[in-house]
Amino acid sequence: MSNSLSMHMANSFNPDAAASLNEHEAALVRRRERVLGAPYRLFYQHPVHFVRGEGVLLYDAEGYDYLDAYNNVPVVGHSNPVVQARVAEQLGLLNTHTRYLTEDILGYAERVTGLLGNQIDQAIFVCTGSEAVDLALRVARHVTGRRGVIATSNAYHGTTEAAAAISPSLGPNNPIPSYIELVEAPNLALESPQVAAENLANRIHVAVEALRARGHEPAALIIDSILSSDGLQGTSPNVLGLAANAIRSHGGLYIADEVQPGFGRTGEWWGFPAQGVEPDLVVAGKPMGNGIPLAGLFGRKDILDRFGRDVRYFNTFGGNPVSIAAGNAVLDELSDRQLLKNAHKLGGEILASLEGIMANDSGVAAARGSGLFFALELADASNSADAARATAVVNHMRSNRVLISASGPRENVLKIRPPLVFGSEHASRLLDALAQALKATRS
Amino acid sequence: MSNSLSMHMANSFNPDAAASLNEHEAALVRRRERVLGAPYRLFYQHPVHFVRGEGVLLYDAEGYDYLDAYNNVPVVGHSNPVVQARVAEQLGLLNTHTRYLTEDILGYAERVTGLLGNQIDQAIFVCTGSEAVDLALRVARHVTGRRGVIATSNAYHGTTEAAAAISPSLGPNNPIPSYIELVEAPNLALESPQVAAENLANRIHVAVEALRARGHEPAALIIDSILSSDGLQGTSPNVLGLAANAIRSHGGLYIADEVQPGFGRTGEWWGFPAQGVEPDLVVAGKPMGNGIPLAGLFGRKDILDRFGRDVRYFNTFGGNPVSIAAGNAVLDELSDRQLLKNAHKLGGEILASLEGIMANDSGVAAARGSGLFFALELADASNSADAARATAVVNHMRSNRVLISASGPRENVLKIRPPLVFGSEHASRLLDALAQALKATRS
Repeated sequence: MSNSLSMHMANSFNPDAAASLNEHEAALVRRRERVLGAPYRLFYQHPVHFVRGEGVLLYDAEGYDYLDAYNNVPVVGHSNPVVQARVAEQLGLLNTHTRYLTEDILGYAERVTGLLGNQIDQAIFVCTGSEAVDLALRVARHVTGRRGVIATSNAYHGTTEAAAAISPSLGPNNPIPSYIELVEAPNLALESPQVAAENLANRIHVAVEALRARGHEPAALIIDSILSSDGLQGTSPNVLGLAANAIRSHGGLYIADEVQPGFGRTGEWWGFPAQGVEPDLVVAGKPMGNGIPLAGLFGRKDILDRFGRDVRYFNTFGGNPVSIAAGNAVLDELSDRQLLKNAHKLGGEILASLEGIMANDSGVAAARGSGLFFALELADASNSADAARATAVVNHMRSNRVLISASGPRENVLKIRPPLVFGSEHASRLLDALAQALKATRS
Repeated sequence: MSNSLSMHMANSFNPDAAASLNEHEAALVRRRERVLGAPYRLFYQHPVHFVRGEGVLLYDAEGYDYLDAYNNVPVVGHSNPVVQARVAEQLGLLNTHTRYLTEDILGYAERVTGLLGNQIDQAIFVCTGSEAVDLALRVARHVTGRRGVIATSNAYHGTTEAAAAISPSLGPNNPIPSYIELVEAPNLALESPQVAAENLANRIHVAVEALRARGHEPAALIIDSILSSDGLQGTSPNVLGLAANAIRSHGGLYIADEVQPGFGRTGEWWGFPAQGVEPDLVVAGKPMGNGIPLAGLFGRKDILDRFGRDVRYFNTFGGNPVSIAAGNAVLDELSDRQLLKNAHKLGGEILASLEGIMANDSGVAAARGSGLFFALELADASNSADAARATAVVNHMRSNRVLISASGPRENVLKIRPPLVFGSEHASRLLDALAQALKATRS
């Protein structure tokens, strides 16, 4: 794996510069290189070997604890005992597929669609966000009879062939076909939310024309409701509503990608309502099963009817009783422990602290947040994106045993996204480590 | 859901003819229609509501047991206690992704690649067979720089957009793009294995020419090593070896789809060695985690290197510690309980009985088997495919609480594929129910 390769992903390990590994870690890296395919990547200049997790802490092989301020899958905490107990119980009872009648999948589907508002009344369960996005594209293309899709210019929507085709953040060797058109995401560091919304809607109209010039009509516009991999540009309200209207004026569907914002991350159940969007299709995944593979496509019945009239869909493991048990446990924990409220309140406090940090560090160009998802944009003296400092901060914090990462089209955005069971004591540890790392990397 | 719709899938429930449902079942069906998308399908004229499973038995809401002679996912048995214990333990310990170092994924990858022979030395873990197939196509297309793919004419390889495009068994509304070419599978009822192999290889050469005539070079040939959905036509040795040579002579890769045959189904670890094939890529899935979503792409290091040099791949849940715990438990159970030997021995006995049934029923045109996977081909008096009788047999057996299904391009092939913990007492119950159903449906 060459250095140039590692550059395709922010915060990826470069084995050519791996002096800091101890003997056991070096042996694990060698075994990985031998038996896992080269497409795998590790995080950090000094990768971390984890053996145990609990709540917001991960423990390495020597017993040191790391504060997890990055992982959005274990949303109700690493090794959550409620998820563990329910999954274990279900594994001893029944785990079969959806071509037999089982009851729990129905209750769970009713629960989730009940949270999604009036428009979205049906569910199809799959195993990963990529599968949900891929199915959303199949549905949109089938019901519109069109192939074109519009996505944002640093979007990430998944890794199937169809999902990768709308994921330019996967890098220069990831081909974007002619029936895909990319639009710049809003830039909330430069535009007011209202101007950002209007400009984005205009870009959708232009994108439709560009597709047409290449012989394609638009089937759909897909946007992550908080624009995570575009640098978390979707934190202001109503930035996306006009874009949804724009695609519909051309007969395309609006797909809300809620894999990152969904299930409480923003302090609300979903990211799209605050954007003034009524989506036609919604995809969700990552936190749904707290690590048990569970994801879903949710949609309007009339749309799924038109697809299902012609096409059957079966996902062997999707929505099986064990994954549904995990899904129900996550919803229970989110509710019982009031984790959305926590994301909202603690998230607001952390964002205020990040804004304070920005005021005292000219290299911090912007601080954005939505619930417990934060972006800190780093710029150098000439106000250019400072990817090098972002990498240095991420690795400095890792050496202080606090886990975050970097993201964004220019790889200069610190990405902070802890499990929702994060408490104020964890916030202090995060902010202390961040302050130290920013101090140590100040030029 | 109309009758014509249901016809797109063998053994699918038609709600318009659902007089036999009790009140609770009817209520479940109504809830399904309300909250699950129309692409879902149920099995059987009278769908079954299951609440519990153990070994090879499933139990309905009234406590009646059903013999499972159909499901290939719970390969080491429904509610397997070893899988349950290992998964539960790991859920309390650690469940994170592959961008941190963890040890068990390496041991498991070494174990599986160790079973795959000299050629196949690396793994990439995903959640579903569809994801594995989709990734295999991405890899083949990237490393060859070509787009064309050849598959068999009633193949099923999955449900992502790219996998569905090579799955003509999904029915007439599933579009097959111009860069896909379909070839007839061997027909072992009409051809000797050697003739079948030569004819198939010739069809590969013709298919390459057909692709070229449409402007596409072949990236890959993908074949299920036992041709399951083509009516289990891959039960004779060396039927596929010449086809693999043929695609390679044109610079394409050979992808062995082991989602159905892999992990012991045939009495061997994989289906491809008996076919004289050395695949470039292997995909596996269904039984790998006994119902915990785990699947994999396995390949030659030089091929995965060429892909990974340019493209990174990350699957959030793929190969996480919990799925790996399930995978290791399945391998342990397969070995400790000598289930491959059981598949081989008991499978041979059942096949002999099926051949005996064929000799006494002129409506049974062929009996094929490979380990614990059997196909019984039904034909009418004029020797035409008898899909109606196949449906009647499947539903008669369901009413006797024995689960099988139907398959094949003409939907006239009984598909029998029990968990590998099937014993001789279960075989007797299966064969008795089959004999009764055949007798009741004899014209």
